[in-house]
Amino acid sequence: MSLRMLVFLGSTREGRMGENVAKCVVNLLSEVKHEVELIDPLKIGGDGHVHQPMHFYRDQNDVPEWMIETNNKIVNANAYVIVTPEYNCGLPPALTSVLDNFPPASYRHKPCGIVCYSMGSFGGIRAASFARPFLSELGMVSTPSACVIPQVVGKFSDEGECNDERIKNNLEKVVKEISWYGRAMEEMRSKEGVPS
Amino acid sequence: MSLRMLVFLGSTREGRMGENVAKCVVNLLSEVKHEVELIDPLKIGGDGHVHQPMHFYRDQNDVPEWMIETNNKIVNANAYVIVTPEYNCGLPPALTSVLDNFPPASYRHKPCGIVCYSMGSFGGIRAASFARPFLSELGMVSTPSACVIPQVVGKFSDEGECNDERIKNNLEKVVKEISWYGRAMEEMRSKEGVPS
Amino acid sequence: MSLRMLVFLGSTREGRMGENVAKCVVNLLSEVKHEVELIDPLKIGGDGHVHQPMHFYRDQNDVPEWMIETNNKIVNANAYVIVTPEYNCGLPPALTSVLDNFPPASYRHKPCGIVCYSMGSFGGIRAASFARPFLSELGMVSTPSACVIPQVVGKFSDEGECNDERIKNNLEKVVKEISWYGRAMEEMRSKEGVPS
Amino acid sequence: MSLRMLVFLGSTREGRMGENVAKCVVNLLSEVKHEVELIDPLKIGGDGHVHQPMHFYRDQNDVPEWMIETNNKIVNANAYVIVTPEYNCGLPPALTSVLDNFPPASYRHKPCGIVCYSMGSFGGIRAASFARPFLSELGMVSTPSACVIPQVVGKFSDEGECNDERIKNNLEKVVKEISWYGRAMEEMRSKEGVPS
Repeated sequence: MSLRMLVFLGSTREGRMGENVAKCVVNLLSEVKHEVELIDPLKIGGDGHVHQPMHFYRDQNDVPEWMIETNNKIVNANAYVIVTPEYNCGLPPALTSVLDNFPPASYRHKPCGIVCYSMGSFGGIRAASFARPFLSELGMVSTPSACVIPQVVGKFSDEGECNDERIKNNLEKVVKEISWYGRAMEEMRSKEGVPS
Repeated sequence: MSLRMLVFLGSTREGRMGENVAKCVVNLLSEVKHEVELIDPLKIGGDGHVHQPMHFYRDQNDVPEWMIETNNKIVNANAYVIVTPEYNCGLPPALTSVLDNFPPASYRHKPCGIVCYSMGSFGGIRAASFARPFLSELGMVSTPSACVIPQVVGKFSDEGECNDERIKNNLEKVVKEISWYGRAMEEMRSKEGVPS
Repeated sequence: MSLRMLVFLGSTREGRMGENVAKCVVNLLSEVKHEVELIDPLKIGGDGHVHQPMHFYRDQNDVPEWMIETNNKIVNANAYVIVTPEYNCGLPPALTSVLDNFPPASYRHKPCGIVCYSMGSFGGIRAASFARPFLSELGMVSTPSACVIPQVVGKFSDEGECNDERIKNNLEKVVKEISWYGRAMEEMRSKEGVPS
Repeated sequence: MSLRMLVFLGSTREGRMGENVAKCVVNLLSEVKHEVELIDPLKIGGDGHVHQPMHFYRDQNDVPEWMIETNNKIVNANAYVIVTPEYNCGLPPALTSVLDNFPPASYRHKPCGIVCYSMGSFGGIRAASFARPFLSELGMVSTPSACVIPQVVGKFSDEGECNDERIKNNLEKVVKEISWYGRAMEEMRSKEGVPS
């Protein structure tokens, strides 16, 4: 069962490592026949500020085009993966600002996988743990096995190839879990709808 | 589809409010035909310390009887709900010590609902948010809608009846979600097993 | 002893409530003779993205003027207060993106007070708790008593007057604590320097 | 300026590594002339449950002797250090149950250093970050530089000697900071009392 998936990139930093990590995730998801699209905060439109989340616009006609497009992708997706660095023991604003812009209803009752990375030895593991209540509040369930990538520099090529076996295995674990949860929830959704 | 569920009570305090809240949750789950059992940290055995988690015993013959029994219940359950107070902006030791005693494999890929309460006006909402990474690490997915119960005193009878409509609705929402996720995951599990 | 303080506003949302709350905090700090300046993420320069934190520029000559100015203010301040909403159980990107742009060395060993608010009944209390590890990582110590403001609408005038006694008392508590910690740490700093 | 310090050990597990780590911390604090005492949850009395926090007893004559003694030590101390493992992405019940038993007033406006450890490669760093809001709620300020100890096995002798230079340096950093903050706050306290 092929699913529609979005991969959210949580960095806008010049020279960001996350781009290659995200490519790797996109590749792995594509290999198992999911339709995948990368959501890059630098490309979707808007600046990095949350000026008005989509569902806060009084007149929905005023909602900018990029928001409508991105929201449609979120609504149409069956599952998500975030690829995120850790900034000062927290989630990067690039990740939260993108996700905060859209209504929880768009994400609701869909699973989200977590991939985090850092240049140091802790791999952004705290960002992964703080991501969980954040994703839950948006209505998602985060799948159990986060992939934590320490010392990310040099581990991914520009084409998204990973040269580290342990990490590759962990990424494949994330892929398996998000596929499993995505299917489980999609099947229930198509049979019974979702809990209101 | 009837499921086997465990409700974990997160308080051992004298005069604990959670007992009545947990009864209410047990009642609501039973009404929709689930088999439910309450896990009370004061009754399962052991003191409150984690002396040795079950999976850390070198000789599994040394594992105490109460641990084996409780672990069997955890393994056999399809879904869980925690009913928890908040102590000093964190999870109470009564909750963490019970759950920490058992291997993640026993909880893995099952959903957990969250009900939190307090005597004050914030309802233990921070405990709910800190519960999410904790439950994830144990291998569970926490369902999105936590039921947050502020000013809990006087809201639940000794039989577990709730006299507050808003809270009752929110508890029913938790029940619906845990049923939905429990079934979704159980069906996938029986069809394909779980991701390793 | 008069201190130099910065108040960081954590919202860029149209119609943001935080502006009036922050004015109130600025007023209260000024009344006890501190020099206070508001750091408004919409006014300091840059968009909302973290393109390159100041200390990551290879050539410090490339650092934009607004960054140098803001960093100078951070370095010169003795203490800080954040005034922040909560977005989806987390810190708003407006707050994290501003603070993430500057080196921990600029904030190091100075105290930070926390004021949070929301339109609902939980007052952003989870944002306050997630702020603590974030501020610590940047080198600050957060003072114990956060001021949590539920149902913020209508409680603050455009001049920053607060019409709610309980909240005013709590804000004054934050002011007293940040003054106390600011002085304690400033005196040690001037006598002995700071721990490296 | 010599201070009175308590070191809280956050483990009750058989074969716990924390005992040697805590000894090392006690030694380092003693070398710089502080009076230090270790609070070991297995030795202070009570089982691991929070049956009734001290300040919740209606009749203070009913408070058990071990609680009064431990509380007196907490009240008399100028500063604290926690030495803690991480259990399932959270704080161990051994730590929270000890600290939860005593009133925030006993800890209020004193600094607390953080030392965390694990057998794996992340060193319990998430426990350190979750400790911060918990310690704050109890009225403490946590000092910025946590010492994170990965792969703890074999790094500390039974006498508390550490054979790893990097860790020793980080422990000394914690010692310097807790001394600095302890003195800064103690001096303010003796001059002006503490903010109510």
